Amino acid sequence: MNSIKHNKFSLEKYFKKNKEIIDKALDKYLPEDSIYPESIHKAMRYSIFAGGKRLRAILVIAGCQIFSPEEIKNALPVACAVEMIHTYSLIHDDLPCIDNDDLRRGKPTSHKVFGEATAVLTGDALLTHAFLLMSKRKNIKPEITAQVIEIISKAISTYGMIGGQIVDIETSGIKTDAKTLKYIHNHKTADLIEACVYAGAFLGGADSKQLKYISEYGRNIGLAFQIVDDILDIEGDTKLLGKSAGSDIINKKNTYPSLFGIKKSRQLSNKLINNAILKAKKFGQRGQILELLANFIRDRKF
Amino acid sequence: MNSIKHNKFSLEKYFKKNKEIIDKALDKYLPEDSIYPESIHKAMRYSIFAGGKRLRAILVIAGCQIFSPEEIKNALPVACAVEMIHTYSLIHDDLPCIDNDDLRRGKPTSHKVFGEATAVLTGDALLTHAFLLMSKRKNIKPEITAQVIEIISKAISTYGMIGGQIVDIETSGIKTDAKTLKYIHNHKTADLIEACVYAGAFLGGADSKQLKYISEYGRNIGLAFQIVDDILDIEGDTKLLGKSAGSDIINKKNTYPSLFGIKKSRQLSNKLINNAILKAKKFGQRGQILELLANFIRDRKF
Repeated sequence: MNSIKHNKFSLEKYFKKNKEIIDKALDKYLPEDSIYPESIHKAMRYSIFAGGKRLRAILVIAGCQIFSPEEIKNALPVACAVEMIHTYSLIHDDLPCIDNDDLRRGKPTSHKVFGEATAVLTGDALLTHAFLLMSKRKNIKPEITAQVIEIISKAISTYGMIGGQIVDIETSGIKTDAKTLKYIHNHKTADLIEACVYAGAFLGGADSKQLKYISEYGRNIGLAFQIVDDILDIEGDTKLLGKSAGSDIINKKNTYPSLFGIKKSRQLSNKLINNAILKAKKFGQRGQILELLANFIRDRKF
Repeated sequence: MNSIKHNKFSLEKYFKKNKEIIDKALDKYLPEDSIYPESIHKAMRYSIFAGGKRLRAILVIAGCQIFSPEEIKNALPVACAVEMIHTYSLIHDDLPCIDNDDLRRGKPTSHKVFGEATAVLTGDALLTHAFLLMSKRKNIKPEITAQVIEIISKAISTYGMIGGQIVDIETSGIKTDAKTLKYIHNHKTADLIEACVYAGAFLGGADSKQLKYISEYGRNIGLAFQIVDDILDIEGDTKLLGKSAGSDIINKKNTYPSLFGIKKSRQLSNKLINNAILKAKKFGQRGQILELLANFIRDRKF
């Protein structure tokens, strides 16, 4: 009991500390909103600083720290880039022509505040800025930079995130099978989550065997993350979530609960988390943070 | 007279030959439309192969060939990446919430064929694929790869293309001044055009003095290109243009002709082309293709 309490406390502290570091770095890396044209820079900052757990950025940092506890400075631009990428995908997903969501991270969505044209360009701008940020790191070996850009861009391409998004949209309102649902969740969500912890470990100097374990860890928590997301859309609280609970039902989305029921979905996400923890244990004491992060993904309420 | 005829013939041949090489490479680099999810890959290919002059890709190749006539193979992925980027920007620009255009490259626009949700994601996918393509070149030195990604991403960021687009949208219907109009045109169009020829020259091994001339050449033809575009929107033929002539007037866009009249706009674009040619002449015989391309930009009817 004491150990769990201790762990919870540690994770909370870890999140708080790293969220502060990440937010400060995002503030530094994003164009000031006083820079012309102010409107687009304001819109970029609005969505980035609307909140968010910074889970993807923290996974980059955690992945890096396992292998190089002192290398966080080099991981930070990539950590911020994946937050920009995640936010771009949310802004475009929320557009009236896609999910038509009014609320995100507890605030009105980008198109509700700035209009649709600016929201489209703000998403484009965050995606572009992520690549600009990753490319111009002079203190990272260029072969590492090129490889990290390849890892991230593949994870969010039509082989990854966009592939999942398009199938998600196309199957809305049509009952789909388990294979298609797994495709959607693996690509829409798990690919980027896996790429975050993988890119972090790669930046930290993990070898190919270590990268394999990290990859399997990321795959398992990534899929679990989306299944828990589906469950929270039903059981969760709009206020805590910061986005409209029940929107999957409104948008007639295929989800794990809609196909398998809540109980089986919960069992499945628990199994994935257990698999992830087995991989985290490969790294002994250094892997403890990955274990705590996996537990957080299982137990989260937001 | 003979020399002009000869030049025209050479440029036509140069365009035809390189367009074939670029289209073949694009076909190789884009995911097959038989790859799941087929719809997004079909939509990516639809817009890429709807036509287009491939001017930006040709500028990458021409820039490279001045310094390394044999290096075209290494320039080709970047040439294809800038075509993907250009096409992404057109797809998003044509969306109902931005310019609401029905016709592009002589065919219905992406959202007209595939719907708005797919059009948004197709633009995102082409932008992402461009970075994936640029990042995974194993036969280019990684420091060159990282630098080229920085050059291109900066040119299309809010410091470049997106900056120009947002001001273009925000000033539509409001009469603006010459300074703002120049900002729009320089960033919306000239930044990427300059980056294309610059990245090509960089890949070809140009030194910093040579890059300076190339940069000035690119800046001049880039701005001239957009002024000629404005003129063609008034004087041009929808069929030849492949997009709806008169759309600037419908969208109440600020253009050089709307601010300065056709005659002065033509004088200005001629002056810019002459400046560009002066820079091209710095490279002697090797710069002749840049001179021909500048003349093409001035005289083009499409």
